[in-house]
Amino acid sequence: MAVYTQVSAEAAESLLSLYDVGRLVSLKGIAEGVENSNYLLETDKARFILTLYENRVDPADLPWFHELLAHLHRAGSPVPRFIEDRKGSWLQELLGKKACLIEFLPGISVSEPTAAHAFAVGKALATLHGAVTDFRSQKRNRLGIEAWQPLLDRCDRSAADALQAGLAQDIAHECEWLAAHWPKNLPSCAAHTDLFPDNVLFNGDKVGGLIDFYFACTEFRAFDLAITHAAWSFSADGADYHENIGAALLDGYRSVIALDPSEISAFPILARGASLRFLLTRLFDWINTPADAMVTRKDPLAFYRRLCFYRGTSPQRLFGLQP
Amino acid sequence: MAVYTQVSAEAAESLLSLYDVGRLVSLKGIAEGVENSNYLLETDKARFILTLYENRVDPADLPWFHELLAHLHRAGSPVPRFIEDRKGSWLQELLGKKACLIEFLPGISVSEPTAAHAFAVGKALATLHGAVTDFRSQKRNRLGIEAWQPLLDRCDRSAADALQAGLAQDIAHECEWLAAHWPKNLPSCAAHTDLFPDNVLFNGDKVGGLIDFYFACTEFRAFDLAITHAAWSFSADGADYHENIGAALLDGYRSVIALDPSEISAFPILARGASLRFLLTRLFDWINTPADAMVTRKDPLAFYRRLCFYRGTSPQRLFGLQP
Repeated sequence: MAVYTQVSAEAAESLLSLYDVGRLVSLKGIAEGVENSNYLLETDKARFILTLYENRVDPADLPWFHELLAHLHRAGSPVPRFIEDRKGSWLQELLGKKACLIEFLPGISVSEPTAAHAFAVGKALATLHGAVTDFRSQKRNRLGIEAWQPLLDRCDRSAADALQAGLAQDIAHECEWLAAHWPKNLPSCAAHTDLFPDNVLFNGDKVGGLIDFYFACTEFRAFDLAITHAAWSFSADGADYHENIGAALLDGYRSVIALDPSEISAFPILARGASLRFLLTRLFDWINTPADAMVTRKDPLAFYRRLCFYRGTSPQRLFGLQP
Repeated sequence: MAVYTQVSAEAAESLLSLYDVGRLVSLKGIAEGVENSNYLLETDKARFILTLYENRVDPADLPWFHELLAHLHRAGSPVPRFIEDRKGSWLQELLGKKACLIEFLPGISVSEPTAAHAFAVGKALATLHGAVTDFRSQKRNRLGIEAWQPLLDRCDRSAADALQAGLAQDIAHECEWLAAHWPKNLPSCAAHTDLFPDNVLFNGDKVGGLIDFYFACTEFRAFDLAITHAAWSFSADGADYHENIGAALLDGYRSVIALDPSEISAFPILARGASLRFLLTRLFDWINTPADAMVTRKDPLAFYRRLCFYRGTSPQRLFGLQP
């Protein structure tokens, strides 16, 4: 959430000289996205996001992201395109970093979603999943179920217990339980796997943009939905489940894609996994980020509380089905 | 250079409801300016900067800045206006901070100015000084000559000497020397006193915006010019004086305002003071910012080197006069 590499106007102009997108008129470093440097770059013709890839994104994954977003764009999904230069190249080097010029999408991210927002997001996610049924290229989820135990092993257990007594042990049990109960053979596709409110741009109640695909990978579509459910349906601290939001999100998804019975019955398990994934990455960052670094550390317990909620719920309650 | 206060779309919409400036369509935290939180806020009608004032700006000074910028705007200077809400108020409270909606000016800041840029900046500064001859309201310079010795007293001398042997003693001598030789009764006016390349927005070679007036105060106009000279005419590390840039800047200024002989003869002294002012504030920040904080600490020695340059130069050399 910061600008790590300073890009001068001269450097941006030199990059722009490769493209047919107009002359630089404004360049502002913006604070958003995963750990990349992002600039809002305006020419006399259009606006773009200039992204320099820092540590978290593996440059080897960029072609897959490019292919996915090009596919989604052709299918009419509201995703940002990578812009090609005169030679057809969408990937550049700038100040020693891989860099891309990306379409700018207007729209605002909501912090307190309404049920209408949640329905629209569920629908947009299902539309995204529908648009990739013919996208064959695969990418492993580096933060999927196989990654959770190793991630826990890299966290200092006493630091975890300092957050809440018994936390490390409870997470270890959850890793084991999920490994034993994780569903197999659910429908999978190219999935966003990070569709938090930050990554959805609204024009009014309408979804105008889905952004930040840098965690996208091949995953169970219902796991992507479970992540989105965990991201949207709770108070920020995870203490309160907003039933109307959660139900609207699932309704929105199912207005486009009819989930299989196996997906519905596995949903609480998938949502426990979704909660655990963010609990673990937040815990790792919490333990390994100096307290005085000027980076907001996100509270891991906000996802521990979600995990506890999903342990105690049922498909019937989440989907509003007859018991 | 960061976003300190997170403003949600909902909070921005609630603020916008006070104004007649359209409906929110985009909100991006931007990394610029002094230690305020800044957002690029776009409505369906126009773009604005939303600023939340954090620690460095004293809210008691905001009315003076407002008055100055309104005066300059009426005089046709390319400065951003504070926008008034329906009730005529330009100052708001948002999330416990004072906040203002400010006109957005397009344009880019150059990092490697040409002589044409420098001439344009000198001219723009003189035009600014010309536009405030009838602006009577005064504001003390909190970082003027009276502030330098106290600022040095708040810096740990051994930490200064760790940067360069003898630095603390040399700065102490400079404070004394400047106190004894500082000119009196030079023409003064409302001055920017921080007109670094970051704070000038160019459209091509034309100055399209002068921004970030939060250090503005009543000062010798020639001291403002000396600060601008020190800011623009050197390599970033201060080791190289770019004579063509410095000369073009002074020529640009003098194409609008004929400096008095007393201002020309005092110019190297004023430029030593300008260098000392930034040396001291950078030194203070250097010593008092943790090394692992994610804030770029600016090298104090870059202005020590400028100070040394000005000690060894003459009005004749700087202004290209016959000796």
